[in-house]
Amino acid sequence: MKVVTTIEALTTEIQTAKQKQQTIGLVPTMGYLHEGHLTLAQAARAENDVVVMSIFVNPTQFGPHEDFASYPRDLPRDTALAESVGVDIVFAPSVEEMYPQDGGIRIAAGKQATILCGASRPGHFDGVLQVVAKLFHLTQPTRAYFGQKDAQQVAIIATMVRDFNFPIEMRVIPIVREEDGLAKSSRNVYLSESERQEAPAIYEALQLARDHFLATGDAASALIEAKSHIQARTQGSIDYIELLAYPDLTPITAATEQVLVAAAVYIGKTRLIDNCIFTVKEGL
Amino acid sequence: MKVVTTIEALTTEIQTAKQKQQTIGLVPTMGYLHEGHLTLAQAARAENDVVVMSIFVNPTQFGPHEDFASYPRDLPRDTALAESVGVDIVFAPSVEEMYPQDGGIRIAAGKQATILCGASRPGHFDGVLQVVAKLFHLTQPTRAYFGQKDAQQVAIIATMVRDFNFPIEMRVIPIVREEDGLAKSSRNVYLSESERQEAPAIYEALQLARDHFLATGDAASALIEAKSHIQARTQGSIDYIELLAYPDLTPITAATEQVLVAAAVYIGKTRLIDNCIFTVKEGL
Repeated sequence: MKVVTTIEALTTEIQTAKQKQQTIGLVPTMGYLHEGHLTLAQAARAENDVVVMSIFVNPTQFGPHEDFASYPRDLPRDTALAESVGVDIVFAPSVEEMYPQDGGIRIAAGKQATILCGASRPGHFDGVLQVVAKLFHLTQPTRAYFGQKDAQQVAIIATMVRDFNFPIEMRVIPIVREEDGLAKSSRNVYLSESERQEAPAIYEALQLARDHFLATGDAASALIEAKSHIQARTQGSIDYIELLAYPDLTPITAATEQVLVAAAVYIGKTRLIDNCIFTVKEGL
Repeated sequence: MKVVTTIEALTTEIQTAKQKQQTIGLVPTMGYLHEGHLTLAQAARAENDVVVMSIFVNPTQFGPHEDFASYPRDLPRDTALAESVGVDIVFAPSVEEMYPQDGGIRIAAGKQATILCGASRPGHFDGVLQVVAKLFHLTQPTRAYFGQKDAQQVAIIATMVRDFNFPIEMRVIPIVREEDGLAKSSRNVYLSESERQEAPAIYEALQLARDHFLATGDAASALIEAKSHIQARTQGSIDYIELLAYPDLTPITAATEQVLVAAAVYIGKTRLIDNCIFTVKEGL
């Protein structure tokens, strides 16, 4: 495995791969790798000749009062983990390498970025699109791997790929769950024993909403059922739970083919997110 | 020469070229080809295995009161001209093919777009960047060809290529001039005989500004000299004449390496633009 920190060195590796007609799988990360990242890398490993993992804490997706400076970083540990799952190239540039100058051009996420988790993070998804577009151009991947856990991020990137014709296949890797259905998250360790027992109700509620919507086509009553389930089974408070057309994140219409049902719920002080994406025609 | 109108057909051609490791030159146009376009195509022909010319009147770069509907179109004539200069593939999509849906993501040009010709066309360069990014992704060119005549457009696209790491070489083809220095333009036919005799003063003024700046480093006095020349030699009125750092289009500083001097002048009722780009160290 090679660790490269400059665009020039990365470009040499990419050009070599392209000359050999090799497929390239890109796994973009901000480092401090956990099981979710490794699952993405394993999927990339299975499907591509060359696997590139980027490790870059991108300043432009942090708000002025967010935790860019204190975001955890551990490159030696990350490179060891990346090597253990078969990554070929780790691209770990500095901020100066990625943003040596600024001509002022921005990619502006639209209405998709103003709802769900985006409502409380203005500008966040603009920064995500900026760094993802740069990484796509730098690595020219055949396929790029993202976790479905961050469904809104995935939807917005998928929209950029679609509407700007990036020659890339987006691969969305399903959420890894505990045996009782709770989505795996590094935040789950913050849950008390009783909170941990309540937490699977979030995924149960998403499934109820999905099944109700597929049976009736009624998004409003599907949401009521899901909310009731969370309120009955947990002490938590719901930040949001929504059914939206995927990937546009617009209200569901008769033409909607794919649906995202997504929730953010405070279980005690811990904010947990979960979602599922389903095809409308699948269940009808 | 092939004429393709769908993204699917274009993609097949591009993939074939990529599999053969062929270089691709892209000449983006809005059609109604003139000598300037053909010069770009000839440059692309000389440097690439495959030459793609796009012909697409892009609605998103026209303002609501601009002439999108009446913009001249003549695809049969254009394809004949393209073939005559050795273009391999003409990509002439419909608006529906290029914009089948809209997830709301935009590329926003920054301060570069608010000056010079951009001052009177809000949103114009956002639309240009949108369609150029799409065409870059669709054709994956080794090199893309633009005319220096539209210096602001070139500067903004060059900034996008640089700041978003497009794996593309931008080739900027010099302005083609009449023997007396007047930049060739389809608008020159609107000039009366006396106006035509005055018009070369614009290019003379640009050269004076360049030479003065290179000799003294003083942008303000270089502009005064250029304006005086136009006022003394023409009946025209100056829309703008500016010296700016290229490609950022910011004020010139001690660190500036390349300079754009650009002018727009009304000669009678005809608005003529011209510019030159020079390297600071060249003349010092």
